[in-house]
Amino acid sequence: MGPRLTDVSARARLAGPGEDIGRDELALATRNHGLPLEALRYDVTPPGLHYVLTHYDIPYVPEDAPWHLTLGGRVRRALRLTVADVRTYPAVTTRVTLECAGNGRALLTPRPVSQPWLVEAVGTAEWTGVPLRLLLTEAGADADAVDVVFTGADHGVERGVEQDYRRALPLEVATGTEPEVLVAYEMNGAPLPPQHGHPLRLVVPGWYGMAHVKWLRDITVTDGAFTGFQHAVAYRLRQHPEEDGEPVTRIAPRALLVPPGFPDFMSRARVVRPGAVPLEGRAWSGRAPVTSVEVSTDDGRTWREVGLDPRDGHRWAWRRWHHEWTAAPGDHVLSVRATDAEGHTQPLEQPWNRGGFANNLVHRVPVVCLDRDG
Amino acid sequence: MGPRLTDVSARARLAGPGEDIGRDELALATRNHGLPLEALRYDVTPPGLHYVLTHYDIPYVPEDAPWHLTLGGRVRRALRLTVADVRTYPAVTTRVTLECAGNGRALLTPRPVSQPWLVEAVGTAEWTGVPLRLLLTEAGADADAVDVVFTGADHGVERGVEQDYRRALPLEVATGTEPEVLVAYEMNGAPLPPQHGHPLRLVVPGWYGMAHVKWLRDITVTDGAFTGFQHAVAYRLRQHPEEDGEPVTRIAPRALLVPPGFPDFMSRARVVRPGAVPLEGRAWSGRAPVTSVEVSTDDGRTWREVGLDPRDGHRWAWRRWHHEWTAAPGDHVLSVRATDAEGHTQPLEQPWNRGGFANNLVHRVPVVCLDRDG
Repeated sequence: MGPRLTDVSARARLAGPGEDIGRDELALATRNHGLPLEALRYDVTPPGLHYVLTHYDIPYVPEDAPWHLTLGGRVRRALRLTVADVRTYPAVTTRVTLECAGNGRALLTPRPVSQPWLVEAVGTAEWTGVPLRLLLTEAGADADAVDVVFTGADHGVERGVEQDYRRALPLEVATGTEPEVLVAYEMNGAPLPPQHGHPLRLVVPGWYGMAHVKWLRDITVTDGAFTGFQHAVAYRLRQHPEEDGEPVTRIAPRALLVPPGFPDFMSRARVVRPGAVPLEGRAWSGRAPVTSVEVSTDDGRTWREVGLDPRDGHRWAWRRWHHEWTAAPGDHVLSVRATDAEGHTQPLEQPWNRGGFANNLVHRVPVVCLDRDG
Repeated sequence: MGPRLTDVSARARLAGPGEDIGRDELALATRNHGLPLEALRYDVTPPGLHYVLTHYDIPYVPEDAPWHLTLGGRVRRALRLTVADVRTYPAVTTRVTLECAGNGRALLTPRPVSQPWLVEAVGTAEWTGVPLRLLLTEAGADADAVDVVFTGADHGVERGVEQDYRRALPLEVATGTEPEVLVAYEMNGAPLPPQHGHPLRLVVPGWYGMAHVKWLRDITVTDGAFTGFQHAVAYRLRQHPEEDGEPVTRIAPRALLVPPGFPDFMSRARVVRPGAVPLEGRAWSGRAPVTSVEVSTDDGRTWREVGLDPRDGHRWAWRRWHHEWTAAPGDHVLSVRATDAEGHTQPLEQPWNRGGFANNLVHRVPVVCLDRDG
């Protein structure tokens, strides 16, 4: 008797008190990567700086390899499309801020053991593709359709379950216009890079990254609710393992700060000199437009509302904020907090769940201000 | 009295027995990133999958910002060039495999505390630029010239020393043709991305990454040996902190394996089914061309020489190897080892130094082969 699939995976677990990052978490951190926070300065994240999270391996799809996207299930007319076919539909380009549902996980206590993001699992890109609702209209969903299931080509095992990565959206979300879901083939005007889903991926503006299925090869309309692993087991908000929990969906508001001054290589501690220090960053929410950003320079004791760049028509992308801080010698902690049009804001105490999902604890940046002659 | 620069940095140190990855190492791992090993399949690494290591922050240089490269010191005629000026010189394109000097550091015992690479700090790109020797010829180095010092725009503090990133090459290396050093402005046919040195960087084929100064803004010819931080303090091979140590220069041979089968999400354990399993990967050396690659499927007890793709004229880039393994149910460890034309090869016991530099311990990939019905 050789090994079995169930022997390959460890159970989901929480790190113990004071437990540092293990080899398994490090192996994820070295292959996935976040946005270096200084790159928050760009409206659109340059290629290679956008965060990347791959559950299994990045599928190898040579430039000229054939690729088919099938659309079937509870529809009147099944479709089978090449990438060239997908490009014949009317194209839409949408600027989208995409964030991993696990962003902030490694700062939680206790820490859920998984991809150990600090706060950098975010990025903004211009995605070009066909609105999913056009494809669904052409195929004609049956009257009893409930969910639309998306299957990617990335294959692996997770907690003993061998699977292609697969997620679903309710039919009304899949066919909606706010947001308008895309089957995308370009990122920032170029074909999708391998790690962002080449040649086709789903883009669901305002939703956490797990919904944006990469390497998309099948869309199936179902007459019942999808209960696959990435819905029923993973990506749920649970306090206890036995709970059903609520599904992870839209992005909670968050603001981040370009760390000011310059860093120490090893500790990433930030150093500034006394005087005027420009502060800037980005704020976003997948629930409603960001309407205010507040900054604290005294570790959250006092807050002041800061300037926001004018709305630029990109509803699903982050918004730039800016402020000038006058630094005095000593140790400081800078924080920033976003609020959206529906009144959602960021907590000062950590929200916690066993997966470390949808956590939007306020960002804290310790800064050392040197003596004037330092 | 406010804080001083020397208070900002911790001293270099080794992790204690059993000490896991700390917050400082994690902060580096989330912003720098390695090549996901499945991307070893590409001859030229797609944008965004090439490894990145930034000492300080990525400088923000908008597309249309002015940039000047100065060349001075012990020369007859100082130069001050815009990027457009640099583009007027004859252009050379070289395919180069670039590896971080710290690759493999996190697998060492004891572990030097720094950027915690496993084995993935590598990538291959086509770099286009002007041969450095053309610029030095035009400027005319004085007869007493010894070193050529390169200064980047990235600014930070390291072990208490505030600095712009700065490295040097001996004049004979800077003006040599084997390798031919480039001042590069394109990567894979496009302007350099921000994280790879936009708008100008040095490329020193065959040398570890620390020599390839990014965001290059000054070249100074000196009549004495350069003794800056990144030469005299960092990037030296030392067994004891008080040693001078040898400098880190050319890349030692290494071979890596595309991990076969499919992964477990959390552990990255590899799973295959019994039967033929194609193995492939890449091998490189900055010292001499790779001449043989051996594979072991029994954790290093026995080795067999495997097939190498024909030489393709890219002396400074990795070479593909391939092999077919017949997997039987059970636990296996695959290893691969490169040897170059000068007889340099990879050790089975770790080479160790306090910086964790130039370590080329053989790559081990544990694989689980399931039962036939698993």
